[in-house]
Amino acid sequence: MMRPLTLASFLVVIGTLASPARSQSDLMKQAQGLFKPLPAQPPALPDNPASPAKVALGKMLYFDPRLSESHAISCNSCHMIGMGGVDLQETSLGHRWQHGGRNAPTVYNAVFDVAQFWDGRAKDLEQQAGGPLVNPVEMDTTTGHVVEQLKGIPGYAAVFAKAFPGTDPITFENVRRAIAVFEATLMTPNAPFDRYLRGDEQALDGRQKQGLALFIGKGCAACHSGINAGGQRYAPFGVVERPGADILPPGDKGRFAVTKTVSDEYVFRVPSLRNVALTPPYFHSGKVWDLRQAVAIMGNSQLGARLTDAEVDQISAFLGTLTGDQPRVTLPSLPPSVATTPRPKP
Amino acid sequence: MMRPLTLASFLVVIGTLASPARSQSDLMKQAQGLFKPLPAQPPALPDNPASPAKVALGKMLYFDPRLSESHAISCNSCHMIGMGGVDLQETSLGHRWQHGGRNAPTVYNAVFDVAQFWDGRAKDLEQQAGGPLVNPVEMDTTTGHVVEQLKGIPGYAAVFAKAFPGTDPITFENVRRAIAVFEATLMTPNAPFDRYLRGDEQALDGRQKQGLALFIGKGCAACHSGINAGGQRYAPFGVVERPGADILPPGDKGRFAVTKTVSDEYVFRVPSLRNVALTPPYFHSGKVWDLRQAVAIMGNSQLGARLTDAEVDQISAFLGTLTGDQPRVTLPSLPPSVATTPRPKP
Repeated sequence: MMRPLTLASFLVVIGTLASPARSQSDLMKQAQGLFKPLPAQPPALPDNPASPAKVALGKMLYFDPRLSESHAISCNSCHMIGMGGVDLQETSLGHRWQHGGRNAPTVYNAVFDVAQFWDGRAKDLEQQAGGPLVNPVEMDTTTGHVVEQLKGIPGYAAVFAKAFPGTDPITFENVRRAIAVFEATLMTPNAPFDRYLRGDEQALDGRQKQGLALFIGKGCAACHSGINAGGQRYAPFGVVERPGADILPPGDKGRFAVTKTVSDEYVFRVPSLRNVALTPPYFHSGKVWDLRQAVAIMGNSQLGARLTDAEVDQISAFLGTLTGDQPRVTLPSLPPSVATTPRPKP
Repeated sequence: MMRPLTLASFLVVIGTLASPARSQSDLMKQAQGLFKPLPAQPPALPDNPASPAKVALGKMLYFDPRLSESHAISCNSCHMIGMGGVDLQETSLGHRWQHGGRNAPTVYNAVFDVAQFWDGRAKDLEQQAGGPLVNPVEMDTTTGHVVEQLKGIPGYAAVFAKAFPGTDPITFENVRRAIAVFEATLMTPNAPFDRYLRGDEQALDGRQKQGLALFIGKGCAACHSGINAGGQRYAPFGVVERPGADILPPGDKGRFAVTKTVSDEYVFRVPSLRNVALTPPYFHSGKVWDLRQAVAIMGNSQLGARLTDAEVDQISAFLGTLTGDQPRVTLPSLPPSVATTPRPKP
């Protein structure tokens, strides 16, 4: 069971990081010890091997709004490819214009996160993919209706059969599996910071390197490390100082809802910072639209550090180097509805 | 001024068509006289020359939901690329889950229609593109706010400058122009019927040719002709027999709202039948989901012909040959919102 970071363990980690890098080369070595570049290929998913046919089906399902009760909302509605993998909304708009409870996390590189959703209630992409489908404020369908709907679109039969050889391939589990393998392909490699981690000193300019040194030295990297610069563990929002109710609404106790453990109150999965410059607004509440302000709030709440404007600028400049090559996705041709296809219920 | 078809003029046209084709070759000649294959390249738009930069900008705008007040609705929400260029809804869902007044026409091949919207109130794609943006039940923004929004997204400045060299390129007019040149590229060439029109006898099978012969002989081609098998003129819904209020709601008088001419009551632009098998539900009211039923209704209401089931089947089989190669569109990378970008008002 992964424990959230406590203030005590936190200060130990910071202590090991805080010795300033003596040269550019030292800084690179420090960074290489804390972060990893994105690989060129998506990782294999446990018990869900990818195949071109499965990825192709997953892409179709990802874009098909007929998976929602209204036929107006698809995975891509809130996790938009071409727009940072997010919807740029405080909280997403779902079925009948209802608002979701938390800001939509990006789908990009999500395969590298330790768990899915802000509270980690889904252990992987496959488990996550089923959630919004049946959530009444999101796509508002049922597992049974998803299967009925897809069986009612004749063109899907052959696509499922190719992706899942065997009998009765159109199942809710296979819908989740196919979406997961497609989502795993949505990576953003070759960010300037990836090139730096691979040894290219020129990939970051002076200010970005100052920001990286601060990011490490101030302790940000205690949580935001690894392949995704985050996404690997849980932490209370407000390790040192709890932010105001505008940013941390008291009604949302985060991971506590999953574990029912008091120490998990206001604990959230640390978000990945990859492409963070593309994904405002910030935090689970989506209340902060300015990346610089988000950095300053993190300094206060998580590190007890009142960052100067110059430091905030430098750290923000470093965060900009986490923007990688955006996925290039060609829209799939979806199989047509026919007279007997179940109809939308908007 | 284009006049709607009257019953009298209609019967004349049918008379010229009704002599049955004596052989396959005669049928092909008849068809070649009535229809034209889609060209390989989009036509030039008057006063709006296409350029790669303008098409690229238009594609970005087409997919960018930040053009709507809520930042949740884009052109693609109702005219989905990959799904026949439509939304498969009776009427579209717009701002705050409001329903539009009529079924969303396909964007595919719309450049070849004589005018846009079911009532032809926009003379071309450029005029059409501005409509949904400012419609309170669709995207609910204003011309001024569109400009303010786009100027507030720094990455658009260079893209507009490249597409529209000169001073102050970010204008509402240029937004419409860029969207129009992108939409003009959304064509579906090489349908089996296109290949047939180019002389390939094998492109249609026997039943499809019987359907084509009926389509011509019964008089459907009197309105549904030309490059788009429709889209070229206006006609009353109910030339011979007015359909029921479920399909032709009395409150929507069609083109009358544009021309205020009594003879334009319940007159609509004849829709293109290209890709019609992909674009249920049918008619401006979107009340008919079954293509066969739509064919039967047209027989009654427009031709006074009670088509047999076999005839309906054959005509529907012919209509299936109007499905062409679907556009392959790679999603654009949209420029990010920044701290000063105007925010959504959901």
